[in-house]
Amino acid sequence: MSQQDLYEKIVELAKRRGFFWPSYEIYGGVAGFYDMGPLGARLRKKIENLWREYFIHRHQDIIVEIETPIIAPEIVFKASGHVEHFTDPIVECLKCGRKYRADHLIEEKLGVKTEGLSPQELTKIIKEHDLRCPVCGGQLGEVKLFNLLFKTTIGPYSENVGYLRPEAAQGMFVAFKRVYEVMRHKLPLGIAQIGRVARNEISPRQGMMRLREFTIMEFEFFFDPENPHERLDEYLPRVADTKLRILTAEARERGEEKPEEYTVEEVIREGIIKVPWMAYWMAVARDFVHALGVPYENMFFEEKLPHERAHYAQQVFDQLVKVTRWGWVEVSGHAYRTDYDLSRHMKYSGHDLTVFRPYPEPRVVRVKKVVVDKAWVGRTFRSEAPRVFEAISRLSPEEVEKMLKEEGKVVVEGIEIPGDKIKVIEVEEKVSGRRFLPHVVEPSFGSERLLYVTLEYAYTEREGRVVLRLPRRLAPIEVAVFPLTRDEKLVEKALGIKRMLVDAGFTVYYDDDGSIGRRYARADEIGVPAAVTVDYRTLEDDTVTLRDRDTWKQVRLPVSKLLDALRRFINDNVELEKLGEPVEPSGG
Amino acid sequence: MSQQDLYEKIVELAKRRGFFWPSYEIYGGVAGFYDMGPLGARLRKKIENLWREYFIHRHQDIIVEIETPIIAPEIVFKASGHVEHFTDPIVECLKCGRKYRADHLIEEKLGVKTEGLSPQELTKIIKEHDLRCPVCGGQLGEVKLFNLLFKTTIGPYSENVGYLRPEAAQGMFVAFKRVYEVMRHKLPLGIAQIGRVARNEISPRQGMMRLREFTIMEFEFFFDPENPHERLDEYLPRVADTKLRILTAEARERGEEKPEEYTVEEVIREGIIKVPWMAYWMAVARDFVHALGVPYENMFFEEKLPHERAHYAQQVFDQLVKVTRWGWVEVSGHAYRTDYDLSRHMKYSGHDLTVFRPYPEPRVVRVKKVVVDKAWVGRTFRSEAPRVFEAISRLSPEEVEKMLKEEGKVVVEGIEIPGDKIKVIEVEEKVSGRRFLPHVVEPSFGSERLLYVTLEYAYTEREGRVVLRLPRRLAPIEVAVFPLTRDEKLVEKALGIKRMLVDAGFTVYYDDDGSIGRRYARADEIGVPAAVTVDYRTLEDDTVTLRDRDTWKQVRLPVSKLLDALRRFINDNVELEKLGEPVEPSGG
Repeated sequence: MSQQDLYEKIVELAKRRGFFWPSYEIYGGVAGFYDMGPLGARLRKKIENLWREYFIHRHQDIIVEIETPIIAPEIVFKASGHVEHFTDPIVECLKCGRKYRADHLIEEKLGVKTEGLSPQELTKIIKEHDLRCPVCGGQLGEVKLFNLLFKTTIGPYSENVGYLRPEAAQGMFVAFKRVYEVMRHKLPLGIAQIGRVARNEISPRQGMMRLREFTIMEFEFFFDPENPHERLDEYLPRVADTKLRILTAEARERGEEKPEEYTVEEVIREGIIKVPWMAYWMAVARDFVHALGVPYENMFFEEKLPHERAHYAQQVFDQLVKVTRWGWVEVSGHAYRTDYDLSRHMKYSGHDLTVFRPYPEPRVVRVKKVVVDKAWVGRTFRSEAPRVFEAISRLSPEEVEKMLKEEGKVVVEGIEIPGDKIKVIEVEEKVSGRRFLPHVVEPSFGSERLLYVTLEYAYTEREGRVVLRLPRRLAPIEVAVFPLTRDEKLVEKALGIKRMLVDAGFTVYYDDDGSIGRRYARADEIGVPAAVTVDYRTLEDDTVTLRDRDTWKQVRLPVSKLLDALRRFINDNVELEKLGEPVEPSGG
Repeated sequence: MSQQDLYEKIVELAKRRGFFWPSYEIYGGVAGFYDMGPLGARLRKKIENLWREYFIHRHQDIIVEIETPIIAPEIVFKASGHVEHFTDPIVECLKCGRKYRADHLIEEKLGVKTEGLSPQELTKIIKEHDLRCPVCGGQLGEVKLFNLLFKTTIGPYSENVGYLRPEAAQGMFVAFKRVYEVMRHKLPLGIAQIGRVARNEISPRQGMMRLREFTIMEFEFFFDPENPHERLDEYLPRVADTKLRILTAEARERGEEKPEEYTVEEVIREGIIKVPWMAYWMAVARDFVHALGVPYENMFFEEKLPHERAHYAQQVFDQLVKVTRWGWVEVSGHAYRTDYDLSRHMKYSGHDLTVFRPYPEPRVVRVKKVVVDKAWVGRTFRSEAPRVFEAISRLSPEEVEKMLKEEGKVVVEGIEIPGDKIKVIEVEEKVSGRRFLPHVVEPSFGSERLLYVTLEYAYTEREGRVVLRLPRRLAPIEVAVFPLTRDEKLVEKALGIKRMLVDAGFTVYYDDDGSIGRRYARADEIGVPAAVTVDYRTLEDDTVTLRDRDTWKQVRLPVSKLLDALRRFINDNVELEKLGEPVEPSGG
C-alpha cells in the first residue's frame, strides 16, 4: 500500500468512479452531507435490501416495514425526551465567536475522557487548564448544551414548531397502536423503517462516518414483558451455533478491553443480555454484517456503561467493526428501551397505548374497590351528584385509603366526602386478561457507515491496481460485457448480449474503449463480479468467456447458458469453474 | 356503490388494513403528513421499482440514479430561485389571526380564477367584495407572499440558514459536473433521484393528494441544445406507435377543454413539444402510468399557460389522471427547464459548469480578439503590468468595442487604456470544440399520489365485498396460503408450503382463522393476486389449488410446480388456466 491511508484511497476511488462525494462541492461543501453517486446509490440499495432480507423478509410473520415522515411536530420530541436530552456540550470563543464541541476539544487537547460530564464540569476543566480557541487563541466561554434537533416551523404559524427526526423510532412508537391493530393484535411485533434522519452535529469531521443527514435502518420490536420468550423458539434454532463476541459493561469496568465469546443460548440463560429477543437480533446482526464482507474477528458487541446510554435505554450494546483509520466504529446499536417511549407518548397524547391480552381462562383475583354511599351523595349533591361520582371514580383505591388514613376524609376537586360515607373494600373479580404496555428492543443500523465499511473490506490491490471484492450480490453493476476489439461484428454481437442481459434485469457495464486488459481493470475497480467477453470464436460457435473478478480466471460457455450461469454465479455464489470449460486468461 | 364516495372507501380500507393513515393520529394529526402502513410501504416500493424499470433500468446507458441530501444550504435555493419565487399568497384575519391561502379563499367564495394574480390584485378583490374570515367573520389584512420552503439552521451558527428541498432537482444540478465526469463526459445524460421532499403548504386539505412531505421520483435529462435529437433514434422506435393525448396551451386559450391525439413522431415534427426527448419521456410516462392500472382514456397531458409555469420552465406539460373525488389531478410534470438552473448555479457558485464537446474535426472560425500594446503596458505600469493584463483579459471583445466607440478609451478596474493602445481585431482560429451549458428536460412524479391513483383504479366491489385488483406485480403481498381447515395435518402442510415460498422470496399471507370463504375475502380486499389452498387431496397426491383473485377461478397443480407457476402468474401475467387443471371453486 502507498502512503495514502485506506480511507483516502477509498474516498478518492469513490469520487472518481461515483460511489460518493461531499455534497454541495461547487459551493465549497457543507460538513456532514454526502451525495451518493450512481454506484453508491445502487450499492446502498443492495445493502438495504440485504438488511430487509435478514431482518424483515425472513421474519415476515413478526416484522413489518412502515414509513413515517421526517418532520414531526414538537410534542413528539418533547414526549420522546429528545427536546430535553438530545444535546451535545458546546463552547464559544469569546473573541472570534467560533463554536466547538467542548468534550471533543478537551479530549483532543488534554487526552482526558469526558463521557458523562456535565457542562459545569467541562467548563471547570477548560478554566483549570486555560484551554483556548484553537483558531484565534481567544478565551472560551461557559460550556452550554446545544440541541441536535434540526428545528423548523410547520405551516404559517411560527408557534407550530417542528423538528426533523434524529431517529426513525418515534414514528413507530406514535403509530404503534395503529400497526398493532392492522396486524391483528399479535405480539411480539416488530415495526421497521428505513429512512432519512438528521442530527445537527456541532462540527462533524469524520467524512462518511459522521453525517448530519443519513439513512437509518431500524426496527422497534414490541414484546410482552411478562412473556419475553414468546415465539422465540421458532427462530432461535437458526442461530443456535452462533457465537457472539461481547465486551460486557462489567468487564469494561474491570478494565477489560477484549471481548469474550458466548453462545446465544448462554447470554440468554445467564442474563448477560437482559432480553432474550435482543440476543437473537444481535446474532442476526452479526450474520448480516458478516454478509457485507466483515470477518467475524473484526467485529464485536460492546455494552455501554450507564452514563454512556441514551436517556431511554436500560441496556445497550454497540456493534463495533474495525476500520483502518478510526479503529473500532459503531455500525449498529441494540437498545432495550423498555416501555419508556410508549409510556411517554401515552402521557403526552392522553391516548391509551396499552394492549389487552386475554388469559387462556378468566382468572379470579382479589381487587380493591372504592365504595361510596350513593344515597348520601344523591341527597347531598343533587344535580351535582353525577359530577361527584365521576370525580370519585378517578381516584385509585390506594389514594382513597391514604386520605382516609391521614385525614379521615376524602377530598377530591374541592368536594369533601366524610370518612363514614366512603370506604375501600376487597372483592373477588373475574379478570379475562391484562392491559399493559409492551416493552421494546431496538436494533438500529446506519446505512452510509455500512456502505463505507463494505467498501473498505472489499478494497484490495493486485498487481498495482484496485480490485473491489464486493460480495457478488452487493455489486452495484453485476456484469460487464466487452467485445474483444472494436471489430464491427464483435461489437454488434456484444451489444446483443448486453440487451439480453438488460432485459433479464441485469445492470450491465458495456465498454469497447481501450485494450481488453484496461477494460477488465476498470470493471475490477468498481467491483463488477463477472465479465463476459465476445471474441472471434463467439462468431463461430456462439460461446463467450466469463471472467471472475476475484480470481481473474475464465471459463467458456454457450451464450444460451449465460443467463442461468450469471444468476447462479451472482445470486447463489456458485464457483466460476462450475459454469463452463476452463480457458487460459487473455488479459490481466 | 354505497353513499361513501370512493375516496372515503379507500381511506377507510387503507386505515383498517394498513395502506396509509394520517401521521401523528394520537396527537390529533398534522395536516399534510401521512404514514405508509405495512401494505402501503410495500406497494409504494413496488411502484418506485416499476418507475426505475421504465425510466432507469431500460435506459441504463443514459440515465443513472443518485441520492442527495434533503437539507441544503440557503445559497442553493437562492441560486435556484426558490427563495424568491416558491411562494403562495397568504392573508391573515385581523381579528382572530387565522391565516388562509388568499387565492383559494377567493376561488371558493367568489368562483373567480386567480392564477397569475399578484398579491396587490388579490388584496383588491378581497377589499372590493368585502371577503371576511370564514371562521370569525373578522376583516382580512393585506395579501402577502408566504415562502413554502421549510427553513432550518445547519450547525450551531444561526446565520447558517438551510432549507428542506421542495424538489430533488437541485441536488442533481449542483452535482451535475461530478456525475458528468463519472459518466465519462457523455450526453445526453439523465440523473435521477427518488427521495423525500417537503413543501410547507399553508393549509393542505386534500388528504393524500396534497402533502407537506412526500416522495418525488424525477430525473433531470441533460442534452446538447444544438443536438437535441442525439441518441433519440436508439429509443424512439419503442414508442413509435404511441399516441399522446394532449391539450395544448394554444387550444386552452381557444377555450378547448378536450385533449387531442397526436403520435410521438407528430408532436416532435410539428414542434408541439419543443424538445424531442421530452416527447419521448412523456410517451414512457404514459405507459408507466398505464402499467399502474390507469386506462389510456383516463389520462392526458395538459400544457401549462405561461403564467401557470414555474419560474424556471419554458414549456410544461402536466400528466393528468381522472380520480372520482377531484376530477383531473396531476400525477407527473414534464418541464423544459432550459439551462436556467445550471446557469444560475454557475453564477452563484463561481464554478464553471459548462461542458466541452470536441468537433469531429477542428473548425476554422473567425473570432474577435482584444489586442493591447504590451510594450506600452510594461513601460507604463511596470510591476503592476501583470494585474493590468489580467484585468484586460477579463473583458470581452464586445465590451472593449463598446467602450472604444463610446468613450474612445477603455477603463477597467480603475485602469485607463487610451484608444490607440488597445484594439479589437478579427482573426482566423482553429477551434477544436465548443463549451456550453446543457439544456434540461425534467419528468417528475409524485409517489404517494400514484399510490392513491393505483388503489383507486384497483378498487372494485363484487358480491358486496372489496376486491382490490392491483396489477399482479404491484401487489404488496404476492400469495396467500390457506389450509382448508384447522386440521393439524393441513396446517402443517400449509406451513411447509409457506416456508418454501418465503425462502424463494415471496411475501406470503398465511391465515387459518375462519371459513375459507372469509379468508379469500380478506386476501382479495388487500389485493393478494394468488391464493394457494391445502386440502385433504393435498395429503394424498401433493397437489394444491391456486385461485385467481380477479376471476375467483381455481386450478389444481402439483406442489413441485408451484414456485414456477407463481412466478409466471405474478411476474409474467400468465393466465391461471395455463398453470394447472381447472377445478370447481370451493369458496367465494
